[in-house]
Amino acid sequence: MKSTTERLMFQIPERMAFVNITPQVEAIVAKSGIREGLCLVNAMHITASVFINDDEPGLHDDFKRWLEQIAPFDPSPERYRHNRTGEENGDAHHKRQIMGREVVVAITNGRLDFGPWEQIFYGEFDGRRAKRVLVKAIGE
Amino acid sequence: MKSTTERLMFQIPERMAFVNITPQVEAIVAKSGIREGLCLVNAMHITASVFINDDEPGLHDDFKRWLEQIAPFDPSPERYRHNRTGEENGDAHHKRQIMGREVVVAITNGRLDFGPWEQIFYGEFDGRRAKRVLVKAIGE
Amino acid sequence: MKSTTERLMFQIPERMAFVNITPQVEAIVAKSGIREGLCLVNAMHITASVFINDDEPGLHDDFKRWLEQIAPFDPSPERYRHNRTGEENGDAHHKRQIMGREVVVAITNGRLDFGPWEQIFYGEFDGRRAKRVLVKAIGE
Repeated sequence: MKSTTERLMFQIPERMAFVNITPQVEAIVAKSGIREGLCLVNAMHITASVFINDDEPGLHDDFKRWLEQIAPFDPSPERYRHNRTGEENGDAHHKRQIMGREVVVAITNGRLDFGPWEQIFYGEFDGRRAKRVLVKAIGE
Repeated sequence: MKSTTERLMFQIPERMAFVNITPQVEAIVAKSGIREGLCLVNAMHITASVFINDDEPGLHDDFKRWLEQIAPFDPSPERYRHNRTGEENGDAHHKRQIMGREVVVAITNGRLDFGPWEQIFYGEFDGRRAKRVLVKAIGE
Repeated sequence: MKSTTERLMFQIPERMAFVNITPQVEAIVAKSGIREGLCLVNAMHITASVFINDDEPGLHDDFKRWLEQIAPFDPSPERYRHNRTGEENGDAHHKRQIMGREVVVAITNGRLDFGPWEQIFYGEFDGRRAKRVLVKAIGE
């Protein structure tokens, strides 16, 4: 069995943003020499997501407005008791649950086994801090 | 290490539907000869889901009405900027995020290691097109 | 390839609760002798979740109130047709979809490869019944 473990680093200036990380994940898989296996890609922080969807700016705008409706930013401790801790990112923990922590992607013939429009995104919901994504692949 | 890779094909006449794919996934795992491992089942399209829940028609009706409330179908580009691209499936990209892209199921003693009511579903949110699901299992 | 398979048991007195299961999962991984691999942790029941977020009681209160807004408890069969079956847990099936069924965590150097605040939780949405979580790790 082969395995590879790498981290991607982010420092996003906006509170909320989506970054296409497909090329970086593809490069890690290619370097690993794994031909058949599974690749886990996960946010290492609990106010961030990794998800797969379309690389279309209008859709990303839609996601941002939709997430803001479902879990609005509100620094007060009335809406989010989490903000009693001195944080103001209660909303970000909720947005992350909607978009998910991780994806698992098949590796087939040495490549990410994707449908036609699948792209991997890092989703930031509480930016302006250093964050990491873990890429772990195992296989043969 | 053993691995297996197969695709399931769908052409759903409705816009939204749930299809129980547990028997097909079980058959792929049985054929693979993998006794202990992990089985990834994922939608290869970004307006579709694979998820695990109950095979109960009332619940599926509930899910459909609930998803329609959270992310209503609306072909106009006002609600979904994604629909400026000429698509009218902005809602489907959102519904898919709620229901998820993939499941990972343990393989134990050569079988999917399920709780009593767990069943795997393909969730279609923008039907009337050819779609695929990827089944990838690795193990020994 | 090595693998390990264990079940955690729960009997939660409340309808909804979150239980930190990180120490149990860490102990299973340590005992397995797996140094590099993937660890799947999933609810075996369809009215429960396994998810990763912060171990902060205010946030857990926030999640409970938020989930109650998105999918309110209502034993009547009007809101949830699922409750025509004699169940009154239609809401729990929906809450579970928001919080997710499973997490996959990397194992690196024999340990769960976590960011600074990541903790694994069992999420119960229809307690007062015996429930199980499956922990399955594969690797080398």
